[in-house]
Amino acid sequence: MSGIVVQNISRAAREVTEGLAKCGVATVHEAQGRTGLLSHHMRPIFPGARVAGSAVTIAAPPGDNWMVHVAIEQLQEGDILVLAPTSPCVDAYFGDLLATSVRARGCRGLVIEAGVRDVRDLTAMQFPVWSKAVFAQGTVKATLGSVNVPIVCDGALINPGDIIVADDDGVCVVPRANAAQVLEKAQAREAEEEVKRKRLAAGELSLDIYDMRSTLAARGLKYV
Amino acid sequence: MSGIVVQNISRAAREVTEGLAKCGVATVHEAQGRTGLLSHHMRPIFPGARVAGSAVTIAAPPGDNWMVHVAIEQLQEGDILVLAPTSPCVDAYFGDLLATSVRARGCRGLVIEAGVRDVRDLTAMQFPVWSKAVFAQGTVKATLGSVNVPIVCDGALINPGDIIVADDDGVCVVPRANAAQVLEKAQAREAEEEVKRKRLAAGELSLDIYDMRSTLAARGLKYV
Amino acid sequence: MSGIVVQNISRAAREVTEGLAKCGVATVHEAQGRTGLLSHHMRPIFPGARVAGSAVTIAAPPGDNWMVHVAIEQLQEGDILVLAPTSPCVDAYFGDLLATSVRARGCRGLVIEAGVRDVRDLTAMQFPVWSKAVFAQGTVKATLGSVNVPIVCDGALINPGDIIVADDDGVCVVPRANAAQVLEKAQAREAEEEVKRKRLAAGELSLDIYDMRSTLAARGLKYV
Amino acid sequence: MSGIVVQNISRAAREVTEGLAKCGVATVHEAQGRTGLLSHHMRPIFPGARVAGSAVTIAAPPGDNWMVHVAIEQLQEGDILVLAPTSPCVDAYFGDLLATSVRARGCRGLVIEAGVRDVRDLTAMQFPVWSKAVFAQGTVKATLGSVNVPIVCDGALINPGDIIVADDDGVCVVPRANAAQVLEKAQAREAEEEVKRKRLAAGELSLDIYDMRSTLAARGLKYV
Amino acid sequence: MSGIVVQNISRAAREVTEGLAKCGVATVHEAQGRTGLLSHHMRPIFPGARVAGSAVTIAAPPGDNWMVHVAIEQLQEGDILVLAPTSPCVDAYFGDLLATSVRARGCRGLVIEAGVRDVRDLTAMQFPVWSKAVFAQGTVKATLGSVNVPIVCDGALINPGDIIVADDDGVCVVPRANAAQVLEKAQAREAEEEVKRKRLAAGELSLDIYDMRSTLAARGLKYV
Amino acid sequence: MSGIVVQNISRAAREVTEGLAKCGVATVHEAQGRTGLLSHHMRPIFPGARVAGSAVTIAAPPGDNWMVHVAIEQLQEGDILVLAPTSPCVDAYFGDLLATSVRARGCRGLVIEAGVRDVRDLTAMQFPVWSKAVFAQGTVKATLGSVNVPIVCDGALINPGDIIVADDDGVCVVPRANAAQVLEKAQAREAEEEVKRKRLAAGELSLDIYDMRSTLAARGLKYV
Repeated sequence: MSGIVVQNISRAAREVTEGLAKCGVATVHEAQGRTGLLSHHMRPIFPGARVAGSAVTIAAPPGDNWMVHVAIEQLQEGDILVLAPTSPCVDAYFGDLLATSVRARGCRGLVIEAGVRDVRDLTAMQFPVWSKAVFAQGTVKATLGSVNVPIVCDGALINPGDIIVADDDGVCVVPRANAAQVLEKAQAREAEEEVKRKRLAAGELSLDIYDMRSTLAARGLKYV
Repeated sequence: MSGIVVQNISRAAREVTEGLAKCGVATVHEAQGRTGLLSHHMRPIFPGARVAGSAVTIAAPPGDNWMVHVAIEQLQEGDILVLAPTSPCVDAYFGDLLATSVRARGCRGLVIEAGVRDVRDLTAMQFPVWSKAVFAQGTVKATLGSVNVPIVCDGALINPGDIIVADDDGVCVVPRANAAQVLEKAQAREAEEEVKRKRLAAGELSLDIYDMRSTLAARGLKYV
Repeated sequence: MSGIVVQNISRAAREVTEGLAKCGVATVHEAQGRTGLLSHHMRPIFPGARVAGSAVTIAAPPGDNWMVHVAIEQLQEGDILVLAPTSPCVDAYFGDLLATSVRARGCRGLVIEAGVRDVRDLTAMQFPVWSKAVFAQGTVKATLGSVNVPIVCDGALINPGDIIVADDDGVCVVPRANAAQVLEKAQAREAEEEVKRKRLAAGELSLDIYDMRSTLAARGLKYV
Repeated sequence: MSGIVVQNISRAAREVTEGLAKCGVATVHEAQGRTGLLSHHMRPIFPGARVAGSAVTIAAPPGDNWMVHVAIEQLQEGDILVLAPTSPCVDAYFGDLLATSVRARGCRGLVIEAGVRDVRDLTAMQFPVWSKAVFAQGTVKATLGSVNVPIVCDGALINPGDIIVADDDGVCVVPRANAAQVLEKAQAREAEEEVKRKRLAAGELSLDIYDMRSTLAARGLKYV
Repeated sequence: MSGIVVQNISRAAREVTEGLAKCGVATVHEAQGRTGLLSHHMRPIFPGARVAGSAVTIAAPPGDNWMVHVAIEQLQEGDILVLAPTSPCVDAYFGDLLATSVRARGCRGLVIEAGVRDVRDLTAMQFPVWSKAVFAQGTVKATLGSVNVPIVCDGALINPGDIIVADDDGVCVVPRANAAQVLEKAQAREAEEEVKRKRLAAGELSLDIYDMRSTLAARGLKYV
Repeated sequence: MSGIVVQNISRAAREVTEGLAKCGVATVHEAQGRTGLLSHHMRPIFPGARVAGSAVTIAAPPGDNWMVHVAIEQLQEGDILVLAPTSPCVDAYFGDLLATSVRARGCRGLVIEAGVRDVRDLTAMQFPVWSKAVFAQGTVKATLGSVNVPIVCDGALINPGDIIVADDDGVCVVPRANAAQVLEKAQAREAEEEVKRKRLAAGELSLDIYDMRSTLAARGLKYV
């Protein structure tokens, strides 16, 4: 089942991924019904990045980054590389040399359920990575994996071409078919939140804005 | 036992909480006999914040932030919101909208043995949060908890109105009744440390300042 | 077996440790055959530091920092203090007072498989620490350990006088006897990487630079 | 996306699931190309059980087992219940009363990426459970989830009707479409292993049986 | 605050603790409104034990079991020893010699948020222990703690004389003042469950027994 | 530095290893000054085993068990196989086929800072294993490691030929040169403990046996 590179994958429109990036992970995740979130173990190597792009996926053996080299050739402008090891691993599949290479191909970031190194250089380059670990341990190039096959990465199913949204809150995947609709909902949600933010900033209570008092009383909440 | 909101809690004097904030967590913790510390799992979402305030406590069901909305009405200027889930949970009970609301009520920070989201916005607002996780997963509003009841948060017993001190070293709780006395001891400790810091900076050894050599020899320490 | 302080240890030449610091952990680790790495649990308390120096080692009982005071007298310009507890512990053996003291002795940093506190002050001082935890819990001074004996720290064997290299990627130990040779290899590796970086930045693929295509095909990689 | 119960799912033939159970997790996992394994966090509540059956899947909110009650009606003889919470949770969604109920429907076991309780009774009943935790904390019945939808459970994608194989080594999922073919390969593998086991028991070395010596020498292995 | 031994503590009546032991942790925890549970990290060293007794509490420094020796003198027939370290620790505060001693005093078990050793002997003696770890690392006797003071043990507040209930599901604490009432509710709950168990065993569905179908439909559950 | 097999290693006398096995891990660990213990993460796959033997060590790449096959040829009657991966890994390097093979060579057990599988069969064979995980994930045979070189396994330095002692409390390593002396101390310790056990069983207090009352009073312990 490994040893496969899928070359032609469909991608979402650039304006859709850019719109999703602006909304951010928390809003996109809510907008698609609280699905598609990777776990809280996936952390950015530096704060402040917010990106979205089409997933080029890698299923890689533990401690072996051969398939990263293979995947780079499949990258296009606006893509995000996503790697899941085939068993738990914290080795660094990726560092500043590979970041230089993928950036030259237009790649906007890396999501990896494993380790990464050269984070000082990656930070200087402002190349964003979301990873499970920072670890200097390198890898070998001895065993095949696959590129652009469906993977489960840190608890989420990711198909090649799905949209990855990532920021300081973590990483979320949006199935490509739903992306435009999710963007619409996310933007509507943002507009609504803007209104609420002003009311809350002015001192109104969410208890009143959302009219929760009667329901709370009905459930038996007692003030003492 | 849940479904209760205690409305009138006693709080410490403002100058006491402000004094404790200046001393910081490590000094306060020492000054009260090394008690009241939450575990090292509680981390700030951005570095550099140092706050103290009166605890408004929340006991909340896993994945349900209804009680946060209820608690906000109980907040006063200088309070710190403290949430413990009734079973282990990393969901985000809190984000930038709620931060806007609690700040409008005078709240100085959040301590939560669970998750938080919108950390980019919270950082921009400089609203400090100490949490067990950063996670975009939202919550429901379906089940009652309680507000301003005693809670165990990340290993420490916290009564409503106790003083919470939090900085980059973590979070410490000071029972309200002891607060003035702890402040006094903490300030004395700081003064002493200032003297020692100068001697140590000048190259003196703590072995000599604290007169440890004879005790060490008596215990059998051997130089080879 | 405890209660020993070894006073005269051999150290590497200053230009060797400084050379290794410039190469950084990932490169040094590769240059010595992927050995000597501490685990990914060892994290810097602030980003950006990159140091190397000779190890002054401490084996300390859990929750007891007496031996840190003893070790300080053994420090020389350019040393790095390395502490391993004799059983797992996250207590803070070290804070800003001790940092003031060790810096006065010329110490360049601390590597500790336990906790550290006063990280706000340590950050302000720019005194670098790599630790397993940040925790305000202090220690006692009641039980002997040893100074400058071989220790296993976070999975790596460290002899006193070995060279410690530490940066944002973690911590690596280089046996003193190999240090000059490792430096040479690390610098050669850096030079090589510089060449590759330029080719990759120009859009060349590592598949071609490393001539991997035929091996991949021989192993059965299929493009579909 | 939640609030759905799919009623008619396809199941594998009984002789296929029974055949897979006999082969066990390690063999089945190898036979399908090392895919489909849940993580090592999934542990049996008592040793010695070995089962296989068709998955009836549950996506449940954290701390809420309402959907378990809904799922029971969908169970048929030979099924295995599989529950993934929609965010990380260790609460007990299941205990001896529910075990009594699902057994009455023919269910052979539970796989749950969360907690379970009443393990003394479950052990007495010999009702096998693979879970992430044993925990007495109960759940509420307040929020909808879904039944018989695709889920990601502890890192593996599981579709309703897929075959679950579970024993002391953990849990593996076999896509229904591949089940017969995987069984065939697993049985062939078992036959082969039987031959090897005899040779190894007689003292032959795998170095010779698999003819590894020349490859090892070619790679540079040195005997000293 | 440490260095105190409280000698006269109140205990619950024997028939109450024995009644609670029979009900078990899960039932008792439900009967007192889902409070008082220690976390799932507390595991029995062998399966099958089910005990209840009055808590004799110990607050002990990390890696120091001096206070265990002090506490033994305070034990009476039917007590359970409960130890919380003052900072996280997995060292073995307790082994077969101490078990021999506490059993001679009538103690029925140990609950310890740390390590334990000699588990082979403890199993042979059938002396039950619930601990966070099994670890052979011993402790020193150098620093004071306290006996029979309130402690927070693995997330639960325990006062001396409170009732500890422990079995394969974990550990629960019942405040002494509530013990008789909790027992009554627990027994009522058991009686009810017996009835339900029979109906469920006969194939009835909880959907019908608890009349959930209409509520589920009202919330929007869809069968497809 | 890898790719080496050391063929002739020195081993301890059989009566020494057998003597140490009888004393068990906790006693041996105390007898050698509380050194040499592997962490509490190393757990037996079934309870009750107690073994000791000479270490044949393996340094293996993550997810690659080629060196296990190489190591088997080096095994002699009474040896224990010890494997440390060169970076963190939970894959199963070992199962029932390899157990059959190593047993045929006289090997008494396996200590592995990684995973193991076929635990049902290993339990039936009563072949003891201490591992960090049970996991069905297999390995490849693609990259060299080394056999009979010094390794750090789960925090302890192990040289080939050192004595490994393992039981339900964990795993301890005794340097070969010290083995006879450690055995002597361990047996003395056991004899002493036997005397104390009788006194404690008769109800005497360790406070009196060890004469602790005056020291405790001097430190300030207060009975209230």
